[in-house]
Amino acid sequence: MTDNFHSLANCIRFLSMDAVQRANCGHPGMPMGMADTATVLFSNFLKFDAAAPDWPDRDRFVLSAGHGSMLLYSLLYLTGYPQMDMAQIKNFRQWGSLTPGHPEYGHTPGVETTTGPLGQGLATAVGLALAEHIERSRFGSELVDHRTYVIAGDGCLSEGISHEAASLAGHLRLHKLIVLFDDNGITIDGDTSLSVSDDQLKRFAAYGWKTLAVDGHDSVAVREALRQAQDSDRPTLIACKTVIGFGAPNKRGTSATHGAPLGEDEIAAARKELDWPHAPFVIPQKLLDEWRCIGARGAKEHDAWQQRLQTATDDTRQQWQKLREKNHDTEINQAISGLKEELTKEAPAIATRKAGERTLSTLAGVVEGFIGGSADLTGSNNTKVGGQQTVTAQQGGAYLYYGVREHAMAAAMNGMALHGLTPYGGTFLVFSDYCRPAMRLSALMNLQVIYVMTHDSIGLGEDGPTHQPVEHLSSLRAIPNLHVYRPADAMETAECWEAALLNKHTPSVIALSRQSTPALPPRTVDENLCLRGAYVIDEPVRRDVTLLATGTEVVLALATAQRLEIDGIIAAVVSVPCWEHFEQQPVDYRQAVLGVAPRFAVEAASPHGWERYAPAEHIIALPHFGASAKAETLYERFGFSVATLVTAIKSALTK
Amino acid sequence: MTDNFHSLANCIRFLSMDAVQRANCGHPGMPMGMADTATVLFSNFLKFDAAAPDWPDRDRFVLSAGHGSMLLYSLLYLTGYPQMDMAQIKNFRQWGSLTPGHPEYGHTPGVETTTGPLGQGLATAVGLALAEHIERSRFGSELVDHRTYVIAGDGCLSEGISHEAASLAGHLRLHKLIVLFDDNGITIDGDTSLSVSDDQLKRFAAYGWKTLAVDGHDSVAVREALRQAQDSDRPTLIACKTVIGFGAPNKRGTSATHGAPLGEDEIAAARKELDWPHAPFVIPQKLLDEWRCIGARGAKEHDAWQQRLQTATDDTRQQWQKLREKNHDTEINQAISGLKEELTKEAPAIATRKAGERTLSTLAGVVEGFIGGSADLTGSNNTKVGGQQTVTAQQGGAYLYYGVREHAMAAAMNGMALHGLTPYGGTFLVFSDYCRPAMRLSALMNLQVIYVMTHDSIGLGEDGPTHQPVEHLSSLRAIPNLHVYRPADAMETAECWEAALLNKHTPSVIALSRQSTPALPPRTVDENLCLRGAYVIDEPVRRDVTLLATGTEVVLALATAQRLEIDGIIAAVVSVPCWEHFEQQPVDYRQAVLGVAPRFAVEAASPHGWERYAPAEHIIALPHFGASAKAETLYERFGFSVATLVTAIKSALTK
Repeated sequence: MTDNFHSLANCIRFLSMDAVQRANCGHPGMPMGMADTATVLFSNFLKFDAAAPDWPDRDRFVLSAGHGSMLLYSLLYLTGYPQMDMAQIKNFRQWGSLTPGHPEYGHTPGVETTTGPLGQGLATAVGLALAEHIERSRFGSELVDHRTYVIAGDGCLSEGISHEAASLAGHLRLHKLIVLFDDNGITIDGDTSLSVSDDQLKRFAAYGWKTLAVDGHDSVAVREALRQAQDSDRPTLIACKTVIGFGAPNKRGTSATHGAPLGEDEIAAARKELDWPHAPFVIPQKLLDEWRCIGARGAKEHDAWQQRLQTATDDTRQQWQKLREKNHDTEINQAISGLKEELTKEAPAIATRKAGERTLSTLAGVVEGFIGGSADLTGSNNTKVGGQQTVTAQQGGAYLYYGVREHAMAAAMNGMALHGLTPYGGTFLVFSDYCRPAMRLSALMNLQVIYVMTHDSIGLGEDGPTHQPVEHLSSLRAIPNLHVYRPADAMETAECWEAALLNKHTPSVIALSRQSTPALPPRTVDENLCLRGAYVIDEPVRRDVTLLATGTEVVLALATAQRLEIDGIIAAVVSVPCWEHFEQQPVDYRQAVLGVAPRFAVEAASPHGWERYAPAEHIIALPHFGASAKAETLYERFGFSVATLVTAIKSALTK
Repeated sequence: MTDNFHSLANCIRFLSMDAVQRANCGHPGMPMGMADTATVLFSNFLKFDAAAPDWPDRDRFVLSAGHGSMLLYSLLYLTGYPQMDMAQIKNFRQWGSLTPGHPEYGHTPGVETTTGPLGQGLATAVGLALAEHIERSRFGSELVDHRTYVIAGDGCLSEGISHEAASLAGHLRLHKLIVLFDDNGITIDGDTSLSVSDDQLKRFAAYGWKTLAVDGHDSVAVREALRQAQDSDRPTLIACKTVIGFGAPNKRGTSATHGAPLGEDEIAAARKELDWPHAPFVIPQKLLDEWRCIGARGAKEHDAWQQRLQTATDDTRQQWQKLREKNHDTEINQAISGLKEELTKEAPAIATRKAGERTLSTLAGVVEGFIGGSADLTGSNNTKVGGQQTVTAQQGGAYLYYGVREHAMAAAMNGMALHGLTPYGGTFLVFSDYCRPAMRLSALMNLQVIYVMTHDSIGLGEDGPTHQPVEHLSSLRAIPNLHVYRPADAMETAECWEAALLNKHTPSVIALSRQSTPALPPRTVDENLCLRGAYVIDEPVRRDVTLLATGTEVVLALATAQRLEIDGIIAAVVSVPCWEHFEQQPVDYRQAVLGVAPRFAVEAASPHGWERYAPAEHIIALPHFGASAKAETLYERFGFSVATLVTAIKSALTK
């Protein structure tokens, strides 16, 4: 194979050059620069079986520098992944192809995660490695024993999330995480010296990583480095010094190769330079055969693994199956139903974050692969419950202290969800802003990640406007395929948790209050009303007005309705715990809930978007930032009181 | 003074303990731990004149660990800042006080920036130091020669933004930036060993910083470290080993002191421990006098500086004045008017990002203190124009290569705006998610920061869904006090830029297209129509329907109107470049623009929020993520074509 090494690597180079040229856009420089390193990785190290991209114990390969997608697509084609034929390579970046501009999870077999926004791949890989650690700890290395490899560029390492993720990986000593840093010294704007002076090896060493530096075009050196990395007791960063656009005689080593086709002339020159006489998109059969051998290299190991799974104890196999298939809906429903019956009796007046904790206590033993955590707000988010073992470098478990790393928490949860676990993680709702790029990927990848976001309004109180979410509910509702829940009491909290767990292809935000709130009037426990998205609390005999509210504002709406009744105005109160579910209801149901009477909406947050359900002048909301004061003072001062609401409603009705 | 050193520091400790106790919430641990270090800084190093918090050449002090706000408020009170009397201290965290839970810029004299979200203070401080570098380079060290000091905690250093900001500061060798790291080993969840193993000194050394470690309670050592830092040719991190809650005999060194009152008993014990016999909120006159001397220490230097300003050349003084007062509106208006006349003649069909570049060319020499930049997308964002000198470690200038650091760019722009400059910075609109926590602070602090965000829709094309904004326009519109512009052609781009520059207390997002778009029909150049927020393009004789659109979808609306006219349906087309301006118009204007005919809205982005202007079923938008393909294909496939629009409108009208 070593004789052929450069030819094997050149297969990647020319597929990348030709595909980018044909698409007339794309990024050839990175695949050309990293072709040698990737060839070493795939031919000698990566444990995979191209015929079975879903083999659970495969090594994960994450192309964090996702713009270099042709590197990955070339490898998928060459090693023989299903569906990845030459037509797909030729259709690079075209509508409907399996070869979009950046790798998209769920779209292309063999793509482990969606990468594109720089830094996300690296942080997601930390989650993958973390999941391996947790699952290995649970099932043993007979069933779980694989590595996570990442190719990351300067951009990935410049992003803030790289700090959070690498620091977390170092702390947890995720030794099966190996990052190949494409150290090519070039970014879009030009030479990295324009903007970066970091000593990346020193930096990663400061996180507790093993660090190595090699010539990324020297296959022997790369091989030796990967060998050392495999023996490391810590995560490893291998800085691979490469020449971007390697092989393009006039453009190599410059940002001109980064994000644009090389041009026909330069590609012709590269063919000469690299002694590659083949036409575009032609891979000589001998080389293709060799690559296909590489792709089948792991088949035996895969078989052996299947054997081990089949000969495992019944108990192990059942647990394994349950984790992978998430077939725990019945148990979840039973647990929640039991809790709801208790709550009906108790009608507790507690903060919904406390209700969340109580719900979690019920669920913790029930949900397979449930992995909780918080970004250093465990006691405030109420995310940790009894019996959850903390994940450390030495042991797996069910709870993670993520530290003050909201962004890495979100991305690591994506990685764990990709690996089959069901992660939930807490922070304050206002810090959803810190998580947002990774939350978007949860939604884009259809991952069941549950964001527990407490202190969900000005009800947070004295910490003031930097800690009070205002625009957050609205701006999360704007994200496609994200369920945003804001339960009104303990019962709704239990139901929202159930809804989040039943929806296995959609991430959820559960927004919970810091402050206590009374239980709503008793209602049916037979149906999960929150799954309806909105429902009428105690339909009145007639409606003069309909009040829509969410979360802690529902009791305010109820109190307002009581007060209005004294003056003969009959109000229906609608709790709206989840817009997205409501929009999926049949039109009849929606019309019945919304009614034909004048509608008012109350939410202690930005009005933006509420015009969907109520006219702009009927929206009682917060069109500005909060302030530092007691929660009750803020509600009063900002117009969230029965008196203000009654006045506003009466004045509108008499217009 | 040295004799009294501990007593001086204890003033801070007891004010903090007592104020938190009285508020019955807050964070006493950090002020108690850092009281000694802060006392050294304020008494021996910080250049300030408490009587003149706005002296431009003062040293900046940023409390990045903003939860320890009582440290800052104590210092402001003790040194005699205006308005900060004992009543304010006693009103800590109450409605209307100058002492909110976290420091708020513009609210309390002496507070240099709003800190609260962890990490933001540190990154904003990099912007302050950067502004000092740029202004010193321009005006000389007679007028600009000050340092930026930061107190940051473990949380700040854990956040991703700390990486981006510290790396940028190291690259630019901002040697007048000095960070005191409160190395107390405690976070909310407990001991830092729960979640962090970073070697922070090594990490910052990897960024090119000078690093020092001292006992934060040893005033001699802190003094020596600060002395060394002042001589450094690089930014300096001083890790101050401290005991959180220092002085509280039973709780010191634990997370129990972090975020909750100590309790009466523990405070009584602390009074004994620290030999502080004074009642709550009582500072012995002798100590107060001493502190007030410290507060007046800089008065002479301030006077001398005033002298230097007055004896500077007329030219220098005028430029200085102009920069500070931003009184360049007439010149801006002239420049934009000239450009608009050219554009009327040319009617160029260009991408609005190209139009942005052209506008910048016109403005670059006109706007005082204009500082451009991009997060490694200079050529794509079209943010750099001829004549802009690049800011480097060696020189000031007008353009910054921020590197792949969107978040630090946004926060650094906040810092520069706080310092009086007018920064703008570019990235793709989809990466507004990376900037978002800092953008929120731009809005909260009323700062004129201009975000140039290109590739503003699926029109971005082949890079695919990770790079295509969908929910971003909507979720930015949800942020209070942020102007979101989406111009439709070159003319509107010029106008939106003018609007952004005229609004000096509001940040702006200017969303610009990657793809070319024709010029809209000629319209008046005498008025800036974009300042109206929305306007009718060529009011028709009657309206059967009104089409609202933004950005590149305006020409689509115009084409649709033309097509509808063939069938006898007369449509008015309204361009809506800025919702926020439109909402500020008189009701008559708004009603005239919106009209009474059925309204349709077209935007290639999330429909969320458009219900404000059109019924849900009349919104032609993108309720899902994009895809990788050519821009034209995506527009066609996702229903943004004349044919689809015409069908949708006709079908709705005949219902």
